[in-house]
Amino acid sequence: MDKNSHNPKSERELIRRIAEDLINQPEPEPEQAEARVAFGDDMAGIPDSGGWLWSVDMLMDGVDFRSAEHGWETIGRKAMSVSLSDCAAMAVRPLAALCAVALCDSLTIDDAVAIHRGAQSCASEYGCRIVGGDTNSWKKPTVVSVTIAGRAEPGLAPVRRSGACVGDEIHVSGLLGGSILGRHLTVRPRVELALELNRHHTPHAMIDISDGLSIDLGHILDSSACGAELNKDALDKVVHPDARRLARQTGRPPLEHALHDGEDFELVVVLAQAADKPTVERLGLTRIGHITKTGGLKLRHSDGKLEPIEPRGWEHFR
Amino acid sequence: MDKNSHNPKSERELIRRIAEDLINQPEPEPEQAEARVAFGDDMAGIPDSGGWLWSVDMLMDGVDFRSAEHGWETIGRKAMSVSLSDCAAMAVRPLAALCAVALCDSLTIDDAVAIHRGAQSCASEYGCRIVGGDTNSWKKPTVVSVTIAGRAEPGLAPVRRSGACVGDEIHVSGLLGGSILGRHLTVRPRVELALELNRHHTPHAMIDISDGLSIDLGHILDSSACGAELNKDALDKVVHPDARRLARQTGRPPLEHALHDGEDFELVVVLAQAADKPTVERLGLTRIGHITKTGGLKLRHSDGKLEPIEPRGWEHFR
Repeated sequence: MDKNSHNPKSERELIRRIAEDLINQPEPEPEQAEARVAFGDDMAGIPDSGGWLWSVDMLMDGVDFRSAEHGWETIGRKAMSVSLSDCAAMAVRPLAALCAVALCDSLTIDDAVAIHRGAQSCASEYGCRIVGGDTNSWKKPTVVSVTIAGRAEPGLAPVRRSGACVGDEIHVSGLLGGSILGRHLTVRPRVELALELNRHHTPHAMIDISDGLSIDLGHILDSSACGAELNKDALDKVVHPDARRLARQTGRPPLEHALHDGEDFELVVVLAQAADKPTVERLGLTRIGHITKTGGLKLRHSDGKLEPIEPRGWEHFR
Repeated sequence: MDKNSHNPKSERELIRRIAEDLINQPEPEPEQAEARVAFGDDMAGIPDSGGWLWSVDMLMDGVDFRSAEHGWETIGRKAMSVSLSDCAAMAVRPLAALCAVALCDSLTIDDAVAIHRGAQSCASEYGCRIVGGDTNSWKKPTVVSVTIAGRAEPGLAPVRRSGACVGDEIHVSGLLGGSILGRHLTVRPRVELALELNRHHTPHAMIDISDGLSIDLGHILDSSACGAELNKDALDKVVHPDARRLARQTGRPPLEHALHDGEDFELVVVLAQAADKPTVERLGLTRIGHITKTGGLKLRHSDGKLEPIEPRGWEHFR
């Protein structure tokens, strides 16, 4: 077997091949056609359910958290936050969750309860409730998986990745970069903001930043078949102080951390050019660029120079 | 910290403590009250969704399958089967699934695709479809988690664990024991049987045998606040040939394997005494005992002697 072509190097390649397989599934019932298209968005539709969407995220000790450093309740909170952020990405109100765990057998029952307590306490702040799950133990590091389900608000559609149009403005909901210094554990998923945006501003496309701005905005560009130009001066304003701290450790520019670091769980929001500017600012959004017809993702410097941005950041298969 | 009282010895103890916590959750919306009661059944209700239920199962390499021996497609099939069997347990038609994986980084993309292909091929035989998921990799053994959603057939309610009444007859849907010899990988979840039973025979209670007949029937007895008497002569008829083969290796009686081995994924079906006997036999059910008012789980020998059956079998926390 050709090692190079078969090694799991690229998560995107794997998802593409799985999606290809799943799209070729025999159609069990015509009404389920809507379920097909959702593969590749932040959440998938539950067919014929009156608008329910669901998604799942799996977190592993040593990869997404470190139990040697982080408390189990904090770890449970993060597991839930990541799933809540999927809901924010689509402007879906999170309503119910399942929590499945494979617990390292060195954990006490108190530790296991702490994971669930952290997850539940986080969920309840968003009006969401854990309604079931699965508990297992083994001799390996702990794995926590949260499945979440929710709905857009009455009369509204979930916001997809695929609706960005040429000329639309690209915004982010907060400061970016360096979340690995600790912020990734205590993120506040932007659920309320997403719901308010969907209620009053009809975003053309939206995604949460889990793998990094360049990769996640890249998903919008892929789905919407367009390009984007980001403005360097605007981006400088959304560099998180953590990105600057991390830059001092890595020797890379803070802007690179803002562009490529994962797990900010802020929103990338694509709004029509006509969007009401003061309102958008009141919501804490910063305009960082606009959608172009083609050309992938590019960075516009203040001297007018335009350079391509290579999407990179957190991919599970590297 | 007192090691004895805090070590994760008992899955049941953990689930009790988690459930206690979750039942004490602040009520976010009154309509969600229905979601609370489902914790502890095979599936949980998605609140206010027109009758959707969902559940999640997590399988780990070295615990629920062995990738050194079993092909990845077979492993994917098993992961889906376990979730489909949850649907069978409640007479719910499986309609959609999410598949989350933490893949050992020694896997190739082909291996990862094979897991999903196995899961999907199994699902499609039951009219169910994978609509999304999450892919991750790490240096530890592979974990596969399937979340499944479905509904009872129109006009019918899901079958709970809690409806068994004194005098009801207890049936099983096939032969039991020794599935660890290989059968656990290729089980055929009893979905169609469960749906037919619910359509025509209104089972009072039902569960699938995942942890072992004694433990899983024990869940029905706990939920229904009753006891049960099993008939040894009847039980002898449902001992699987694998249980006899395994008994030759373990030196334990085959009946013990039938009573306590996990992962048969057959149904335990509690029917009113008046159930139409020929029909029940035509469906392949075997009557193995009846529900009693109290007294836990007991075994009636052919000489009339009655002895208690200690529930034991596969518990993740031992």
